[in-house]
Amino acid sequence: MDLFEAVKERRSCRAYSPDPVDEDVVLKILEAGTWAPSPLNTQPWEFVVVTSAEVKEKIFREAERCKGWALEKSGWNWLEKYKADFLKSVPVIVAVVGDPRKSGVDSFMEGGPRGYEHGCAAAVQNMLLAAHALGLGSLWFTFFDRANMGEILGVEPEKQVLALVCLGKPAGDQVDIPRKSVQKKTRYL
Amino acid sequence: MDLFEAVKERRSCRAYSPDPVDEDVVLKILEAGTWAPSPLNTQPWEFVVVTSAEVKEKIFREAERCKGWALEKSGWNWLEKYKADFLKSVPVIVAVVGDPRKSGVDSFMEGGPRGYEHGCAAAVQNMLLAAHALGLGSLWFTFFDRANMGEILGVEPEKQVLALVCLGKPAGDQVDIPRKSVQKKTRYL
Repeated sequence: MDLFEAVKERRSCRAYSPDPVDEDVVLKILEAGTWAPSPLNTQPWEFVVVTSAEVKEKIFREAERCKGWALEKSGWNWLEKYKADFLKSVPVIVAVVGDPRKSGVDSFMEGGPRGYEHGCAAAVQNMLLAAHALGLGSLWFTFFDRANMGEILGVEPEKQVLALVCLGKPAGDQVDIPRKSVQKKTRYL
Repeated sequence: MDLFEAVKERRSCRAYSPDPVDEDVVLKILEAGTWAPSPLNTQPWEFVVVTSAEVKEKIFREAERCKGWALEKSGWNWLEKYKADFLKSVPVIVAVVGDPRKSGVDSFMEGGPRGYEHGCAAAVQNMLLAAHALGLGSLWFTFFDRANMGEILGVEPEKQVLALVCLGKPAGDQVDIPRKSVQKKTRYL
């Protein structure tokens, strides 16, 4: 698939068919992730591929817990209607785990390491584009507490679960989401 | 260009030909950025396109200052040899500016808003891929203090300069950088 087509057509998918995703296809998507740039080429990402129904159920429960908590803190009433049930039925969830010790010179900066998060986010974007090019729907999901998700997935406490990438054949039509024009976002110096 | 080709062939470029880059090409690259996903579709990015020699000189000086500071803090002696002179000769530098007020529910979390940074990083990745597909070299540059860079670029103090994306025709050969195998990075649950 053409790069620009993938970039423009990719959408967040929240309804998946239960058809399993081929392991080779998952591996292709992860490999696309590994070609992302990272600070000093530290490649700070790791992947946990979840297909176990039991683990998906735990992920769902953490998202629900997080929803209740966020609703209380934010007062965003629309959160009440947000359904995270697709986390139980989506065939594959890939956790993208980042290692804060694999960052650039920002490790020494006041705000702490961020470069490893940016590298992992670039890896996620490659994965979403690759999934779309391979005919899959995807979702970049972050509605969880990092430490709790780390425990669920057996991740060492030094590392951070930064994102869950849902992967599967889309069920139903994709929803088009508009963008503000690039001109309104740009200034020249 | 095929998506997977772009993903695998994109490399960081640190030597640019002085040929100017067409404004339409820059706009195509920025537009690719705007198709990135973001928390609640907040589209937290803004772009500052720098072609002014004076501003590039200031950016270069901030990178040099940051280098001296980082060398002292990190003890990484290789930093002494790191030349950031390309910042003065690269035809275009695009600053990607993020708005922390445009994040997801992570705004209410202990670590503070991070989703807007991840969305902006995804936008940068789209831009790097688009640049490659359009025959340009690019570099994701973060060797600066965010507040200082914000002042140089006239960015409101509430917003954060997250990355500088260098864009131009590559001069010289591209250096191949290896990746660890995806299998070594992956675990199954």
